[in-house]
Amino acid sequence: MSNLTHLYQHSLSLLTDLYQLTMAYGYWKSGRTNHQSVFHLFFRTLPFNGHYAVAAGLQTAVEYLQQFHITTDDIAYLQTLTGNDGKPLFEPAFLDYLTQLKFDCDVDAIPEGTVVFPHEPLLRIKGSLIQTQLLETALLNIINFQTLIATKSARVCQAAQGDSVLEFGLRRAQGIDGALSASRAAYIGGCTATSNVLAGKLFGIPVKGTHAHSWIMSFDDELEAFKVYAQAMPNNCIFLVDTYDSIHGIELAIQMGHELRQQGHEMVGIRLDSGNMNRLSQKARQMLDQADFPNAKIVASNDLNEFVISELKQNGAKIDIWGVGTQLATAYNQPALGGVYKLSAIRENDSQAWQYRLKLSEQTVKTSNPGIIQVKRYRDENQQFMLDMLYDEPSTIQNPVQYVPIGETEPVALDSTWVGQDLLQPIMRQGQLVTDLPDLVQIQQRTQSQLQQLPNSHALQAITHYPIGLELGYYELKQRLMQQLRRK
Amino acid sequence: MSNLTHLYQHSLSLLTDLYQLTMAYGYWKSGRTNHQSVFHLFFRTLPFNGHYAVAAGLQTAVEYLQQFHITTDDIAYLQTLTGNDGKPLFEPAFLDYLTQLKFDCDVDAIPEGTVVFPHEPLLRIKGSLIQTQLLETALLNIINFQTLIATKSARVCQAAQGDSVLEFGLRRAQGIDGALSASRAAYIGGCTATSNVLAGKLFGIPVKGTHAHSWIMSFDDELEAFKVYAQAMPNNCIFLVDTYDSIHGIELAIQMGHELRQQGHEMVGIRLDSGNMNRLSQKARQMLDQADFPNAKIVASNDLNEFVISELKQNGAKIDIWGVGTQLATAYNQPALGGVYKLSAIRENDSQAWQYRLKLSEQTVKTSNPGIIQVKRYRDENQQFMLDMLYDEPSTIQNPVQYVPIGETEPVALDSTWVGQDLLQPIMRQGQLVTDLPDLVQIQQRTQSQLQQLPNSHALQAITHYPIGLELGYYELKQRLMQQLRRK
Repeated sequence: MSNLTHLYQHSLSLLTDLYQLTMAYGYWKSGRTNHQSVFHLFFRTLPFNGHYAVAAGLQTAVEYLQQFHITTDDIAYLQTLTGNDGKPLFEPAFLDYLTQLKFDCDVDAIPEGTVVFPHEPLLRIKGSLIQTQLLETALLNIINFQTLIATKSARVCQAAQGDSVLEFGLRRAQGIDGALSASRAAYIGGCTATSNVLAGKLFGIPVKGTHAHSWIMSFDDELEAFKVYAQAMPNNCIFLVDTYDSIHGIELAIQMGHELRQQGHEMVGIRLDSGNMNRLSQKARQMLDQADFPNAKIVASNDLNEFVISELKQNGAKIDIWGVGTQLATAYNQPALGGVYKLSAIRENDSQAWQYRLKLSEQTVKTSNPGIIQVKRYRDENQQFMLDMLYDEPSTIQNPVQYVPIGETEPVALDSTWVGQDLLQPIMRQGQLVTDLPDLVQIQQRTQSQLQQLPNSHALQAITHYPIGLELGYYELKQRLMQQLRRK
Repeated sequence: MSNLTHLYQHSLSLLTDLYQLTMAYGYWKSGRTNHQSVFHLFFRTLPFNGHYAVAAGLQTAVEYLQQFHITTDDIAYLQTLTGNDGKPLFEPAFLDYLTQLKFDCDVDAIPEGTVVFPHEPLLRIKGSLIQTQLLETALLNIINFQTLIATKSARVCQAAQGDSVLEFGLRRAQGIDGALSASRAAYIGGCTATSNVLAGKLFGIPVKGTHAHSWIMSFDDELEAFKVYAQAMPNNCIFLVDTYDSIHGIELAIQMGHELRQQGHEMVGIRLDSGNMNRLSQKARQMLDQADFPNAKIVASNDLNEFVISELKQNGAKIDIWGVGTQLATAYNQPALGGVYKLSAIRENDSQAWQYRLKLSEQTVKTSNPGIIQVKRYRDENQQFMLDMLYDEPSTIQNPVQYVPIGETEPVALDSTWVGQDLLQPIMRQGQLVTDLPDLVQIQQRTQSQLQQLPNSHALQAITHYPIGLELGYYELKQRLMQQLRRK
């Protein structure tokens, strides 16, 4: 068994399901490795019974694609795999071939920080069948999780109504990267900082933290603990007041605040980590104000989520900063986004026409969309999002534009005052990055701006759904394909 | 922003909450870095309303501790952090000091694959205050998650009653390591294989997989798809039959089974991935048997968990192998274990007596246990587990042994026919590994053997709870400490 450091220094190219490799082998044996294919990555249901999702993970996915390279070390492992007759699964010539694979597909994607909806391709990949297939699992892993957490974070931040939200999830996140990716995605969704120092180092996210109960408990006396902390770090004092008794703790913090002020420093605030947050925060605010600390912040932590925060805000809790851990970093009430990755077009080579593909399902909503999909988002004159329309990029959109809402069968005429914009943008061509990816601050700003343009984005539970439709010509194309398949 | 490859080649030593570093600074400024301390890592509530948890993650934790070393690169980052006055958080001399830190604590732990219960220290760490503090977050992250997933896996495997369970979670796991650690822990819990090739390579776990819907869809015709696959990989044929129509798919798989047999190969089986699993599996079994494939396996996948499997088994579904993905790898119905890490003893140096510590809480169950805790597990003459008893290792156990069940106040006499064994074992002394850690197969066997010794381990929902108690002398010691604290 490899040790942890080595683990993270391994090639990540085998981060895939075995069936991707056995299919790759099948494509190779049957001379189909370089058939061209188009796959789309999308989800079918919004997480958290919510109103939107926030696309995230693209930069990580691009980095994964850029580093993709099957090493001789990987091959040495694959050689050891056997079938039910004890013989090797893979021929040596195939394994040689794998080491020469270099990522050279085209990638289009919806930028990180964009609000997205069911059936919209977050990512579209076009290239050789073997590459598009091998990369499925890693792309799903990366984009499913970051999109889930960016969405959760946006919900939590909307509930906090502009208050600062800190991500504190590391200790209960799902593994090391479960924590790091969660910190990144939480920042995209609107968190202002993380407790995770490594995430700060790697992604440039601001980091926050002061002290824990163990600090207080390592002293004989709570006041002494505050004093020694304030002496060490007078410019970073948020006193944790609930180790023994919160009200007494607040009194001691105020005493420390005066001492700090005499030395030319301001206490940043106090933190509440247990008890009735509503009552305690109101009491704390009153005590701090009366003691001439109107700017001292009240931080709350302890199993918070968007619903608890929303309720505390409604009940008049006086909390300025929200530390949200487990519930955010694991998306506790729905810890996975069910994103899928579906083949939608195939051809032997460039000179042939695409053959469109879809997967039928007894559930209409699970029948996949064929073709080479683009999404047009329409805004009204107030820049509010009104409709997302899926269409087949190579086909001509019929004029005047009509669309069929998802789940319905009758076309609707598009409002001619709306202005449409394509959501998927070219990211990579023949494996090379063809655009500057935005930095995390820009992505976070994009999320904020998108949410402002989405009607009712503040509703934690969706009552009406944002409209998504298929362009009429595309809808008809899909119907024809479904009928052909059913006839078979 | 760092790229993905670099991310995983970084030192992981900053995988901690900032407050661990600010507390470390406080300890350093106040000359307390080398005070000695004891911390315990434990959880307070069993996950999944279940009957047990399965300890996991120790080997990963040990590897983390062995690699712990703050690099000059880490320091360069820490130098950039500032307080509310814009001045650096940390003095350069402290950062120099950090680079010289080398892990030299003592670690005792309950071996991986042991069934464990609330309040039992999965890990006990004794050493300098600064090190025990800095390492808290990473230890919690690693052990919380792997223990959670090993437990979930054990439940799923128990529901499958000895059938093979395959872990298929990579695509929806929480990040790259969320997937890899889940594969490791799922194997500990009893899964026989994973789809995750990198987990196979890194941990030596068997890997399984054949083909997906996209393979079928890349051909014009389902039978052709099966044929080409069988030609490529005749020794690894599990045909996925539900792309268009499951019953028709089974017919085609049987046709392929005959062709394979003529060529001297046996089809392994078929896979069902949608529809009514009970009805389809019974029909498939009948069709396969009638066609002279009584040994062909029926694999089921599609949002399975322990409850679905249990119900399918009860209703007579004819499924031989269970592919369990999202629900297992994310512990979907409870995606975090609430493990905590609490200071329980402190002293200035070796020559002093330990001062025991506990954290009070209004909720009795949240008041932490003081001292240097060991757990004795008592078995009856049939080797069945009867009681776990927490006691203070340096104190003498009173004879005859009495204990106070957790949540109660009256002592109970121990059954004198029971035989007790300590659960925590020495793992590291002064930072050096002092035991051979078992390999994954041994850990998996330990889980199986432990579950056989635990009465009612098969119950998916706990009705009665396994008894845990505090040894009477230890109980009284804790009461005295609580009274002293309350008097203050």
